[in-house]
Amino acid sequence: MLRVGVNGYGTIGKRVADALAAQPDMEVAGVAKTTPNFEAAAAHRRGYAVHAALDERRPAFDEAGIPVAGDLDDLVRASDVVVDCTPAGVGAQNRERYETHDTPALYQGGEDADAVDASFNARANYDEIAASDAEHVRVVSCNTTGLSRVLAPLEEAYGVEKTRATLVRRGGDPGQSDRGPINDILPDPVTVPSHHGPDVNTVLPDLAVDTMGVTVPATLMHLHAVNVTLETEADADAVSETLASESRVFVVPERARVAGPAHLKEYAKDAGRPRGDLWENCVWGASIAVEGRDLYFFQAIHQESDVVPENVDAIRALAGDADAAESVVKTNRALGVGSFETTRSETVTTDGRGAAASADD
Amino acid sequence: MLRVGVNGYGTIGKRVADALAAQPDMEVAGVAKTTPNFEAAAAHRRGYAVHAALDERRPAFDEAGIPVAGDLDDLVRASDVVVDCTPAGVGAQNRERYETHDTPALYQGGEDADAVDASFNARANYDEIAASDAEHVRVVSCNTTGLSRVLAPLEEAYGVEKTRATLVRRGGDPGQSDRGPINDILPDPVTVPSHHGPDVNTVLPDLAVDTMGVTVPATLMHLHAVNVTLETEADADAVSETLASESRVFVVPERARVAGPAHLKEYAKDAGRPRGDLWENCVWGASIAVEGRDLYFFQAIHQESDVVPENVDAIRALAGDADAAESVVKTNRALGVGSFETTRSETVTTDGRGAAASADD
Repeated sequence: MLRVGVNGYGTIGKRVADALAAQPDMEVAGVAKTTPNFEAAAAHRRGYAVHAALDERRPAFDEAGIPVAGDLDDLVRASDVVVDCTPAGVGAQNRERYETHDTPALYQGGEDADAVDASFNARANYDEIAASDAEHVRVVSCNTTGLSRVLAPLEEAYGVEKTRATLVRRGGDPGQSDRGPINDILPDPVTVPSHHGPDVNTVLPDLAVDTMGVTVPATLMHLHAVNVTLETEADADAVSETLASESRVFVVPERARVAGPAHLKEYAKDAGRPRGDLWENCVWGASIAVEGRDLYFFQAIHQESDVVPENVDAIRALAGDADAAESVVKTNRALGVGSFETTRSETVTTDGRGAAASADD
Repeated sequence: MLRVGVNGYGTIGKRVADALAAQPDMEVAGVAKTTPNFEAAAAHRRGYAVHAALDERRPAFDEAGIPVAGDLDDLVRASDVVVDCTPAGVGAQNRERYETHDTPALYQGGEDADAVDASFNARANYDEIAASDAEHVRVVSCNTTGLSRVLAPLEEAYGVEKTRATLVRRGGDPGQSDRGPINDILPDPVTVPSHHGPDVNTVLPDLAVDTMGVTVPATLMHLHAVNVTLETEADADAVSETLASESRVFVVPERARVAGPAHLKEYAKDAGRPRGDLWENCVWGASIAVEGRDLYFFQAIHQESDVVPENVDAIRALAGDADAAESVVKTNRALGVGSFETTRSETVTTDGRGAAASADD
């Protein structure tokens, strides 16, 4: 059993902890949190050993009635691997501490690519990372993960001459009541191309990808308007099959009458998915179109959860002995990834068998 | 003086009426309205002869205390040209009535291209329409106008191999409190390409343009993420100059620190523009980038007003003797188009001289 510590228990950390708990070959060594808020209390109720990430805040945990299992060093010592889920920029500051304990660590996409040994996406470069001696690895961001999952198979099947994508980004997550914009449509960044294209190149180095970022008043998911100029001709049905054969791409059928992210989220909640999460890229089947060698489609990306199975796989790439195919199957099966339409109304529990039992193998 | 009737006095009609009133060679023959609401009352206060578009509603105007100058036939008889600003689809139904009176008419972009003799954009095909015997002409929609204004000069200066644009559309106008979405990002239409590319071809028939439409919870302006593969290489500065030399394109300088449509609208209101209107395409200078032959930029399009100067020009193309250059200069001067940064705090009045006096010649 791989013992995995989770440092940071916010939007990503709490999902990663539950996903780890659901794996047959992993256990949660504990979680670390700076503030004893409602999420820390939930972590304790779920049975995770809660660690106070900042020593000076430890009395606040006592006051809040949340038992503290130790400090951050205790957590790192108890872990074979740490998944750093702290806010962007904090992860890089934590690297030295993990190195002191000689503990490999994962970081999230908010960290700079050059703050780590390598960047990771299961579909793009799992085996390469597993074969390398990288010990400090960044799981690329939600948008980059979403692009990599479709570009890797398109490159393999048809060759990609150039990708141009407009990323219409949610202004903040549902819980981030301090974010905006309200009633605006922001070029973000106003400079073109945005950083997302170069970020894809940290896991798929040879692809030509230009991206433009826009931010809008919505919280549920990002929407990508994607154009891929293929190297060879392909019809829309063939592309649809190529994408549908990917376990982490859900080609939304027209019959589902899914208009946008709000419907997708309803769908996920009705399916009983934990927190209504959508781990897969959601590509509208009706949008897949080819004009000459130009492929177009829309996909929605759930910013809170699409990197969660990637973090699980990255742990195995760093510290396990599974290859990419084995790890992805194991992760998907334990969580129910790719079994969108059949997942029963059960949530992932800390003993990890809830979602696994309901997954469509 | 060209006597122009305006049938329909909503978002577009009220702006067109004021723009006509501001022209030295035009007068408002009257406006027609179906409902005696606050807009009808404002039309009366502005001194326009209000006509009841539906005979059966005439008593309602009497009850509302809005004097009725006549019915729709009276308005058409009093007009050399009618500008139909009725809701999408209604204009085509009105065509027969205008023909009965042998009165040429303009229609808005919501009508089908095949319901009219020709489609119009001043930058794309004014002289062609003026030389033709077209009498029922459609001014293309706000988004199509916005694309045509930049693609025509880019085609002339560099050649356009292919254009791919994502149109991030406002969900509704500020006054349309019955529209959505709330908190969603909708592929709209979900099929690709959207109708906007073919619509550009009604005024620029030889351009290859693929468009994708997205609708978001905002009301102020549309935002276009534009990619143009040029036929010849050009650097970003040259493109910026090409676009800035267009009188209906405002290249927003970085020093203005304009983050998005909300800032643009504040800017227009501070400049004293009528209703805070932005008749020009607003292209972010900082966004203009070239990668090889791929040009990228963001532009904001004010859906309520960018077609207003186009309607004025289209009247001259149909019934006047000005050529394109003369008409555009005349329209711009009367309204203050292109004088974004110097317009004084005066609004267009029905005597038409307010904005003209403050325009930067």
